[in-house]
Amino acid sequence: MPYTRDELRWNGWGLRRQTFDLHGHDREVWDFVRETVGLTALPDTPAKRLEECELPAGGLPAELLETLRAATADDRVKTDPLERAAHALGRSYPDLIRLRNGDLSSAPAAVVYPETHEECLAVVKACAEAKVAVIPFGGGSSVVGGVEAKAGEGQQAAITLDTTRMARLLDLDPVSHTATFQAGVWGPDLEEALQRRGFTLGHYPQSFEFSTLGGWVAARGAGQQSNRYGAANKWLVAARLATPTGEWRTLPFPQSAAGPDLNEVVCGSEGALGVITEATVKVHEVPEASDYRAYLFKSFEAGAGAIRRIVQAGVPVAMMRLSDADETHFFGTFKRLIQPPGGVEQGAEKVLDVVGYGDGRCVLMIGLEGEKAAVRQALAHTLRLAVAEGGLPVGTGPGKAWYEQRFAMPYLRDPMLDRGVAVDTLETSTEWSNVPGLHEAVRHAIAEALGPHSAVLAHISHSYADGASLYFTFIFARDLEDELGQWRKVKRAASEAIAASGGTISHHHGVGQDHKEWFGPEKGERGVSMLGAAKKALDPEGVLNPGKLL
Amino acid sequence: MPYTRDELRWNGWGLRRQTFDLHGHDREVWDFVRETVGLTALPDTPAKRLEECELPAGGLPAELLETLRAATADDRVKTDPLERAAHALGRSYPDLIRLRNGDLSSAPAAVVYPETHEECLAVVKACAEAKVAVIPFGGGSSVVGGVEAKAGEGQQAAITLDTTRMARLLDLDPVSHTATFQAGVWGPDLEEALQRRGFTLGHYPQSFEFSTLGGWVAARGAGQQSNRYGAANKWLVAARLATPTGEWRTLPFPQSAAGPDLNEVVCGSEGALGVITEATVKVHEVPEASDYRAYLFKSFEAGAGAIRRIVQAGVPVAMMRLSDADETHFFGTFKRLIQPPGGVEQGAEKVLDVVGYGDGRCVLMIGLEGEKAAVRQALAHTLRLAVAEGGLPVGTGPGKAWYEQRFAMPYLRDPMLDRGVAVDTLETSTEWSNVPGLHEAVRHAIAEALGPHSAVLAHISHSYADGASLYFTFIFARDLEDELGQWRKVKRAASEAIAASGGTISHHHGVGQDHKEWFGPEKGERGVSMLGAAKKALDPEGVLNPGKLL
Repeated sequence: MPYTRDELRWNGWGLRRQTFDLHGHDREVWDFVRETVGLTALPDTPAKRLEECELPAGGLPAELLETLRAATADDRVKTDPLERAAHALGRSYPDLIRLRNGDLSSAPAAVVYPETHEECLAVVKACAEAKVAVIPFGGGSSVVGGVEAKAGEGQQAAITLDTTRMARLLDLDPVSHTATFQAGVWGPDLEEALQRRGFTLGHYPQSFEFSTLGGWVAARGAGQQSNRYGAANKWLVAARLATPTGEWRTLPFPQSAAGPDLNEVVCGSEGALGVITEATVKVHEVPEASDYRAYLFKSFEAGAGAIRRIVQAGVPVAMMRLSDADETHFFGTFKRLIQPPGGVEQGAEKVLDVVGYGDGRCVLMIGLEGEKAAVRQALAHTLRLAVAEGGLPVGTGPGKAWYEQRFAMPYLRDPMLDRGVAVDTLETSTEWSNVPGLHEAVRHAIAEALGPHSAVLAHISHSYADGASLYFTFIFARDLEDELGQWRKVKRAASEAIAASGGTISHHHGVGQDHKEWFGPEKGERGVSMLGAAKKALDPEGVLNPGKLL
Repeated sequence: MPYTRDELRWNGWGLRRQTFDLHGHDREVWDFVRETVGLTALPDTPAKRLEECELPAGGLPAELLETLRAATADDRVKTDPLERAAHALGRSYPDLIRLRNGDLSSAPAAVVYPETHEECLAVVKACAEAKVAVIPFGGGSSVVGGVEAKAGEGQQAAITLDTTRMARLLDLDPVSHTATFQAGVWGPDLEEALQRRGFTLGHYPQSFEFSTLGGWVAARGAGQQSNRYGAANKWLVAARLATPTGEWRTLPFPQSAAGPDLNEVVCGSEGALGVITEATVKVHEVPEASDYRAYLFKSFEAGAGAIRRIVQAGVPVAMMRLSDADETHFFGTFKRLIQPPGGVEQGAEKVLDVVGYGDGRCVLMIGLEGEKAAVRQALAHTLRLAVAEGGLPVGTGPGKAWYEQRFAMPYLRDPMLDRGVAVDTLETSTEWSNVPGLHEAVRHAIAEALGPHSAVLAHISHSYADGASLYFTFIFARDLEDELGQWRKVKRAASEAIAASGGTISHHHGVGQDHKEWFGPEKGERGVSMLGAAKKALDPEGVLNPGKLL
């Protein structure tokens, strides 16, 4: 395990010792943030320290505690305040607000660390018998309320099953390009184990450093380079799960017509159907070459058109990411504040203005990975298509900068929260013909709900032949009198706009508690009843992650 | 609809007016077949004529018949002998044997032809109420016992719901590259509607001419060019189904993390969860160029290695198909019999012998489709990798010949059956590291079960980064005393070898009745219980295609 519990923030992002490097330009950055949310001063809103917070009584029957210890080990059943607090909630905006305000009402009664599939089986069976909820927890980075340690109806308590002690590479098949891991392996450890052997999974979500394989599968996640490596449902080959009724496993076939594909049910099951204990995944040879570069477009529509042409032509790209005008402006300004441009860059900026790529421009990042020759060919092909759609190539500088900072942004959230400013994100996907309408509808809904003290940024993060995802970031001045109410209002407005405009309630964040209201109508009555019946078959007592998804 | 009922064989393949063209070399071909199965003479085993067969009593309550007519139209509820016989069974070997022997015991009481989703809903609801089984039927080309019109336990009769009057293109979205069809559209009609508008689905199973969109989805089918166009579960974007409890539909998102992907449950549902009435599919621009050419390899392992290298390198191929030595020899001989080689070809054959590509060689067909430049690049890339693995390029002649004959082979089966000779096929898939072992185990099991009067041929038909499918064809002298017993013996031997050797019970044929015994262990107890619970939620009376899959 790369981290100890002490090294990690229990109420914020990542490592305690790490912060976002503003290169000494803190004043300029916070002035810019203040202006963005239209305040005259940023308030001081520090988080409570753990010592100031009250933990609820555990409420776990003594016999169950004994059974859990017997099933695992004495020192792998934890009940100390830090463990309980660190597993109370996930990393959504409302979760963080609650944690920072000292609300630990949903701290689990205990945190259990199994080391094997069999131990997981024993834990979930014992809990089902005792009618105690089991919350599967990997990195705990859910941003949709997916890991809150809440007991279900008629259940006396909830425990958290932390999977991160199950982190071994079990098998690597260099012929079939597959690898089997225990599911609690952290992102960096997984890549280290693979890359040492010449392979990569290539799954790099923004949460990569603080999330686990099991979580990626459970939440049906997608990495930033999913054009090349696929979302979890594309790379999952087989899975093993612990359920209260016994082991559930799927077999590693490249393709099968033996009925529905249950890997596609494992993906997105969010701990409600079983605890994912092992997973076999497709791996790739570590790419020989990569090329990340940027293009400017005069409009979001033109940039989206370029992505569409490229993906429909089947050009093998790893990533395409298009920021809308507001996002391009915001991050451009931010970057210039922490790394003030030199004379050459200022001159270049003037030229861009003259040729029409100044105000209102949108930046498209294209990432290529693979064999040298393939990257060279793909570069020529993307260049040709991007330029044909009105794109202006601006080189590899912005691409490299993005690549280097791609996991850093979450570290900016905590200092914003310390200053009365909120930042939240949500995402969706839709067919290409519907992308412009959905983009406008959701932007408008968020802006409307938040009022003038806010900014709404958006980008296309993932693309497919038939459509694309849209990722929205919104920054706003917190209503310190009713922070959760303010958030619920904007969340509802955005979700209703998504549902009404033909988007899915989530492209890669998942359902959890926050999207549950919209999940039902999206799947339809028949879909929900099938999934409910399937859950009942595996988890008749409903102890697995109650209140999320199903 | 491209065919009328009268034009189609009720007990054999395709159009009555069409036969396999032996170019006047009938005697040589039948001598070769006779030698292949080691007989001194081929017996005369003609099929019974419909007039000689006895149809069972219908057993449908008069009120239900009236309800079905009211729900559709008087002339769309058929009870005449030809309609009932044509819908009694599918096109598996045992199905054909039963039909040819005059066993129409499973003829449906009636055949209903709805024209809309709403009519389908009314039909399945009325049947559920009357406890009468509903067998969804498109082209009826199932080779796994998937459409036998058999009532379930406690059900008084079975009707067949023929979808082929639901064949309209409902929508084409040229921006998103998706199209929505009614699900009963035949392959040729679907492609004609798309290609007229510049698009293609590219799904060409061997049954293409006599199968439907809904059947492809229900059986989780894969076309011959699935490397480029994907199996049904890759191109299905959304579906609409009629179930006894109401409409079940999925929405057309390019990717979603809103729980499990229910399109992946629709695919492979085999009519047991609902009647697929409409489907939205991904389409591609009609390819500018194509290139089908052949390579010879000295061994099956070397050829398989070439496929693996090409697919793992991500070269955009449409198809790769590698015959083992026995299959290469069989079809090579067959081709030379109906198109005797000229002097040049005979000379070339001698050269191949000298350079080591004579006896025991394996032919690999590689098909490329797409934009001209992309095909050119892929050709250079495949050529380089195939040669590096020991492949000898032999040009586009064999590729063209294969392409032209790719739907014709099933027409050979009926005249074989007329002569006491059987031909059957089965298929599986596995991870690359397991391909050689599975190939050997299944070949051996089939040969062992059939004894000396048989031949076993095999090829890799579909390939993936992590593995490949294996397709077996076996030809044998029928035991005219116990034809079904003989078949059951070889089917069991092959299926047990597949299960024991790490293969799936089907890569693209489906489960039906013939694979049901192996489907359960493959999905596992938990998998089967989930799917059973899901079925119960949609079809509480169990009237949808009973006895197949679930």
